[in-house]
Amino acid sequence: MTSMTARSSLPTDSEFESVDAYWRAANYLSAGQIYLLDNPLLREPLRPEHIKPRLLGHWGTSPGLNFCYVHLNRVIRARDLDAIYIMGPGHGGPSAVANAWLEGTYSEVYPAISQDAAGMKRLFRQFSFPGGIPSHVAPETPGSIHEGGELGYSLAHAYGAAFDNPDLVVACIVGDGEAETGPLAASWHSTKFVDPVHDGAVLPILHLNGYKIANPAVLARISEDELVKLFEGYGHAPIIVSGDDPATMHRAMASALDQALDEIARVQRAARREGATDRPRWPMIILRTPKGWTGPKQVDGLPVEGTWRAHQVPLAGVRDSPDHLAQLEAWLRSYRPEELFDEAGQPVPGVRDLAPTGDRRMSANPHANGGLLLRPLDLPDLGAYAVPVDKHGTVTAEATRVLGGYLRDVVAANPDSFRIMGPDETASNRLGAVFEVTDRVFEGVAFSTDEHLARSGRVMEVLSEHLCQGWLEGYLLTGRHGLFNSYEAFIHIVDAMFNQHAKWLKITRHLPWRRSIASLNYLLSSHVWRQDHNGFTHQDPGFLDVVLNKKAEITRVYLPPDANTLLSVGDHCLRSRDYVNVIVAGKQPAPVWLPMDQAIAHCTRGIGIWEWASTDGGADPDVVLACAGDTPTLETLAAVDLLRRSFPELRVRVVNVVDLMRLQPVEEHPHGLPDVEFDALFTTDKPVIFAFHGYPYLIHRLTYRRHGHHNLHVRGYKEEGTTTTPFDMVMLNDLDRFHLVMDVIDRVPSLSGRVANVRQRMADERLRLRAYTREHGEDAPEVRDWTWPY
Amino acid sequence: MTSMTARSSLPTDSEFESVDAYWRAANYLSAGQIYLLDNPLLREPLRPEHIKPRLLGHWGTSPGLNFCYVHLNRVIRARDLDAIYIMGPGHGGPSAVANAWLEGTYSEVYPAISQDAAGMKRLFRQFSFPGGIPSHVAPETPGSIHEGGELGYSLAHAYGAAFDNPDLVVACIVGDGEAETGPLAASWHSTKFVDPVHDGAVLPILHLNGYKIANPAVLARISEDELVKLFEGYGHAPIIVSGDDPATMHRAMASALDQALDEIARVQRAARREGATDRPRWPMIILRTPKGWTGPKQVDGLPVEGTWRAHQVPLAGVRDSPDHLAQLEAWLRSYRPEELFDEAGQPVPGVRDLAPTGDRRMSANPHANGGLLLRPLDLPDLGAYAVPVDKHGTVTAEATRVLGGYLRDVVAANPDSFRIMGPDETASNRLGAVFEVTDRVFEGVAFSTDEHLARSGRVMEVLSEHLCQGWLEGYLLTGRHGLFNSYEAFIHIVDAMFNQHAKWLKITRHLPWRRSIASLNYLLSSHVWRQDHNGFTHQDPGFLDVVLNKKAEITRVYLPPDANTLLSVGDHCLRSRDYVNVIVAGKQPAPVWLPMDQAIAHCTRGIGIWEWASTDGGADPDVVLACAGDTPTLETLAAVDLLRRSFPELRVRVVNVVDLMRLQPVEEHPHGLPDVEFDALFTTDKPVIFAFHGYPYLIHRLTYRRHGHHNLHVRGYKEEGTTTTPFDMVMLNDLDRFHLVMDVIDRVPSLSGRVANVRQRMADERLRLRAYTREHGEDAPEVRDWTWPY
Repeated sequence: MTSMTARSSLPTDSEFESVDAYWRAANYLSAGQIYLLDNPLLREPLRPEHIKPRLLGHWGTSPGLNFCYVHLNRVIRARDLDAIYIMGPGHGGPSAVANAWLEGTYSEVYPAISQDAAGMKRLFRQFSFPGGIPSHVAPETPGSIHEGGELGYSLAHAYGAAFDNPDLVVACIVGDGEAETGPLAASWHSTKFVDPVHDGAVLPILHLNGYKIANPAVLARISEDELVKLFEGYGHAPIIVSGDDPATMHRAMASALDQALDEIARVQRAARREGATDRPRWPMIILRTPKGWTGPKQVDGLPVEGTWRAHQVPLAGVRDSPDHLAQLEAWLRSYRPEELFDEAGQPVPGVRDLAPTGDRRMSANPHANGGLLLRPLDLPDLGAYAVPVDKHGTVTAEATRVLGGYLRDVVAANPDSFRIMGPDETASNRLGAVFEVTDRVFEGVAFSTDEHLARSGRVMEVLSEHLCQGWLEGYLLTGRHGLFNSYEAFIHIVDAMFNQHAKWLKITRHLPWRRSIASLNYLLSSHVWRQDHNGFTHQDPGFLDVVLNKKAEITRVYLPPDANTLLSVGDHCLRSRDYVNVIVAGKQPAPVWLPMDQAIAHCTRGIGIWEWASTDGGADPDVVLACAGDTPTLETLAAVDLLRRSFPELRVRVVNVVDLMRLQPVEEHPHGLPDVEFDALFTTDKPVIFAFHGYPYLIHRLTYRRHGHHNLHVRGYKEEGTTTTPFDMVMLNDLDRFHLVMDVIDRVPSLSGRVANVRQRMADERLRLRAYTREHGEDAPEVRDWTWPY
Repeated sequence: MTSMTARSSLPTDSEFESVDAYWRAANYLSAGQIYLLDNPLLREPLRPEHIKPRLLGHWGTSPGLNFCYVHLNRVIRARDLDAIYIMGPGHGGPSAVANAWLEGTYSEVYPAISQDAAGMKRLFRQFSFPGGIPSHVAPETPGSIHEGGELGYSLAHAYGAAFDNPDLVVACIVGDGEAETGPLAASWHSTKFVDPVHDGAVLPILHLNGYKIANPAVLARISEDELVKLFEGYGHAPIIVSGDDPATMHRAMASALDQALDEIARVQRAARREGATDRPRWPMIILRTPKGWTGPKQVDGLPVEGTWRAHQVPLAGVRDSPDHLAQLEAWLRSYRPEELFDEAGQPVPGVRDLAPTGDRRMSANPHANGGLLLRPLDLPDLGAYAVPVDKHGTVTAEATRVLGGYLRDVVAANPDSFRIMGPDETASNRLGAVFEVTDRVFEGVAFSTDEHLARSGRVMEVLSEHLCQGWLEGYLLTGRHGLFNSYEAFIHIVDAMFNQHAKWLKITRHLPWRRSIASLNYLLSSHVWRQDHNGFTHQDPGFLDVVLNKKAEITRVYLPPDANTLLSVGDHCLRSRDYVNVIVAGKQPAPVWLPMDQAIAHCTRGIGIWEWASTDGGADPDVVLACAGDTPTLETLAAVDLLRRSFPELRVRVVNVVDLMRLQPVEEHPHGLPDVEFDALFTTDKPVIFAFHGYPYLIHRLTYRRHGHHNLHVRGYKEEGTTTTPFDMVMLNDLDRFHLVMDVIDRVPSLSGRVANVRQRMADERLRLRAYTREHGEDAPEVRDWTWPY
């Protein structure tokens, strides 16, 4: 395997010269992007009109990123290494773009940015320029699966990329700013979840340049003794490279990389060929260099290189100050561009040849454009898992347990391209069937009392939603598939990560060279209505509100009402591409409403009238009872039962919504129903009582433009709850069957007559049931055992 | 100071007996809460009807929590220590409640739960019972400032409590499950932010019981060598206490606590009296005990104590299985309740006397009910900071910079009860004036190039929103004041923490014994419309959507349109109690619309017609232009300018919204406008073009019940953006002045005639300005320099 290639001898002096030249070229191109509109090769004296009017960009991190890049290029060539590069530090854009251009990839992907003087000018101009490219290592950047915008996720992405890629080395530069974040601090423990036999290796390079924005970074300001202990404690064997003299540093970094890669090769050989099972102490590099290294040492009498002043644009006044302009010119010329680029503006052979070729270029490695490697999952036929239903709603099943059987066979059929992530809730969420065919992967010490724990496995459980999400994103972005199962309330922990992934997908949709990847699938169970054990802190269905702020072309939300519809939705999501799919489903025993064929048909439509539950004969209802989510569907059908008993002549229509996006106008979402279809379902003039799984406002937000919106009355979670029984929960939030009946009574004019009587009976019944629950500590049998009687 | 009390001698054998008796009592009461409906003292043989119908609760963590509690009680008494207890592990409720009851606090707070047999029965029954109390260390639990529901924040809360409380020791039990989370992994670095002179001490007790839910915990499954290195690397001096024999463990724990508290005293003495400035290696305890310690060893032939099976309810079948019932009875009797409680059911003196008395009881310590200690901030008069405005909108100011001057004087006037938290963005958010009177606190190595960095200070900057939020929550909950300033987009990182804090506040509102605390104030700057440097990843105004899902009695959202209104809002928020206040404000130069007196009046109303900008003469407009947020207000007034030029006869009304909650119906939010007032502002029949700072749906969500809602057309951020100019950003999202004019044209029927002509001119102008921007890399002067000309 690639990473096992024997140790190469240290480079010669001329190779070091070439390494240094490449580094100077990358530094020149990085600084050029920040400053230059024109005169890209400094073929004439620098004048104010060559400078961008708004100087945007971040110099501070660039030389360090370039330094690592060129040294990785050296070892990739020396070892024919299959490697990708994750740039954690914020605003690393100039560096990633510079290197992709030097490697030729940039011009292949964006032919207008040719690898010559004209292309260099456009390269410089487009950076952080209106109509150009962002300042981050963005989706637009070839070779990247990670955007250095919001910080904290680089190392988790790196591990996600390495899983099930045994020949891959993922170099991950972690900035000392990012290292202060919680997700990054937890990510170091990924050493307990990477399997040296079946997974690739992550080589973390902690880059200490001393400052985040205006402040020192914590890890740069502790003693070396503490620093080394910390990373040894995390399970690493750190190699320190520290200094500011380029010649010395090139030698130190080359030696450190050789040492690290030799050790990775040794570890993998020991595990793969010699059967070693002890957890390796994986190498890492701690690189300490000045912030803004090789940039201006002082500006206006104040120190810049090595300080927080190098963070963004070290010389801010170049358009107005001749001093600054001269200093910029001297700085840029210090890289000796005339030695690095030929007459045409192309990198000279001595520079160009250091880059690997073809797919070995980190900017062109297919793992960093995972859709190139994506193979569809081998998915079993749903029929085998369906719950047989002869009569609607009379069979009971735990929806996620049924899905678990299906997932077990997905795991079995796709042994190296599908993973399930979760914060130790896979069994709790009743997906335990997967443990019939796989284990939880864990490289820590195992005890005899552990169950389903092994050195390799398809299930990854760590009590960090950040790690689950980050690993899965890295896994998907490199062309594989997966599912993140979580308690519904705590998925808010990764709101920000979801946002960033949705933004990434939005951009890639419009980049033809980025190939489609598998969707990010969330299965949210242990949901708001069934937190019997856990109470108020565990009740929050608001992730849907966050999701719906992102682009309609990316987001999908499904609320299957039972086991069979969950099967259908789950299968659909695993086949989809480039979406974020959110599935909310219960794990408790609950009625199965639809046989499998009807479930598939219903999920395909995403919304529909349940005629078997309705009494309007397919036309002209007096009232529409709509529902989305398993608990709301149960309460709605129980309400229909009560209505049929009290008002046999009332024409009730039941509409069930699986695909929440169907409620939106077709102009707003590709799944949106045309108005005429929406009106046909909901009417334009009849009261609609909508029982919703989440916060009720969400339904109004989706439907406010619909004709019948003023007739819509939504019940949902209104932030009331505690550790209590299932029925008490719906009562606390006025979502219970009796309250739904009261809502109907209050809104259907034709019911006048016996109304007050029945309404009072419903109100009394609620109080009686609440009193029963408070006395007995459980729900009364008549609500617990209710089934659809028709 | 208390924690400096000299080392006490080790306890005698009889004291250890007393410690063990107290522990047994707490364990008995913990198990009793999970199981017993009746027969609380086992005065008769245990029968099925004594058992709760639904067995909810978590035994696994309880004995360890109780163990720490009793040992802390011993040292509190021995040293007259001022200490509080933060229980990180999930579901520690039974333990916290048991100890509060043993200390008598529970009965003082809830007299119905008396400290006798009848009270014990009610204590047991209410736990996880409908109408009772939750399974967590919840707001309902005396002595708690931390809820073990969502995990990850215990240690940050502990440090927040310790800041500016030099005499306080905060013992913080961190579970090995929680320790896997990102926020907790980052929190250990709080050692670099706690000042041994002016702050109290945090004593972390990492409790390794081996399992989270069904899975091993990472830190419990690494070598002791790695474990010790990790915590030494974090800056601690760990003391290990490990075992399962109670007698041995009592001695080991007593010794470890004495050692730790002696060391804390030594460290504080060295810093306070001897002027030591080196960062101390703070002690911590690593406690390794079996999960479910002292519970059933085996159940149905499977090991339970020390395994994941002890996590929740070790004996699940007690109502149905005589074997389980007998085993439960034997387990409960193993604590020898007859020795622990007297005839009346009160703790016997040998137990009771181990507890501290009065405020020294951790369950009654006023720091854990911070409102008891709250002093109002000394706030300066706003007039001194106001930007003078002779003519609306002609003066320019950076709003947050103006607020910075005010905050500087708040800091100066409140040197020990006000802190500003932020992820290294205080200067970037232009609040830098505070550095005239204080510094960033940092205990790491300082360099000569650092600025405004010191061992103590009012500003806390760490690149972890989780730490900022957690520290601030701990600080507020112990009775102090603060502000969290953040880039708007990245506040989503703490969505989940906000949710939990809002839930906490909602519960405390209804607990009369919990006194009011200062509000949690967010200042969100560097907002979506001005991410010129940072682009798409930094553009997300969706935190408001998350906030509005929480209870109306808790949440407040303010969008001051300029510097003076920001001053007024900031002052208001710092005076408020028990809210979460979200302020969104720009940092870039922008027009100041209102003189200070008008700003205060406008903010007091929260919404109002800007008559000086309107042309409807105070009545009967043709169109309403509403705006919320600084950029939307600017574009709206520029649109009014364009409208006045093109359609001088058009009657335009401008409504500006500062307090977003005013839009909601009065039934939904205490700030909600009555319909009649809303209608008077917005009309019921005229088109309303609403330019909004955030995602446009939010305005519909707030107003869908209003009479004029069908006339409302909202522009806002629609998830389009990149690194570009300010005006390009509003254009990308159709929020620009020209588009607003086009929206007016499309919706005001009376404009027919010259309409097509003007509309085309607007559309052309947008294209021209976009082309200008793309060519020149900056906005055209006519939009950049526009000011209100009337």
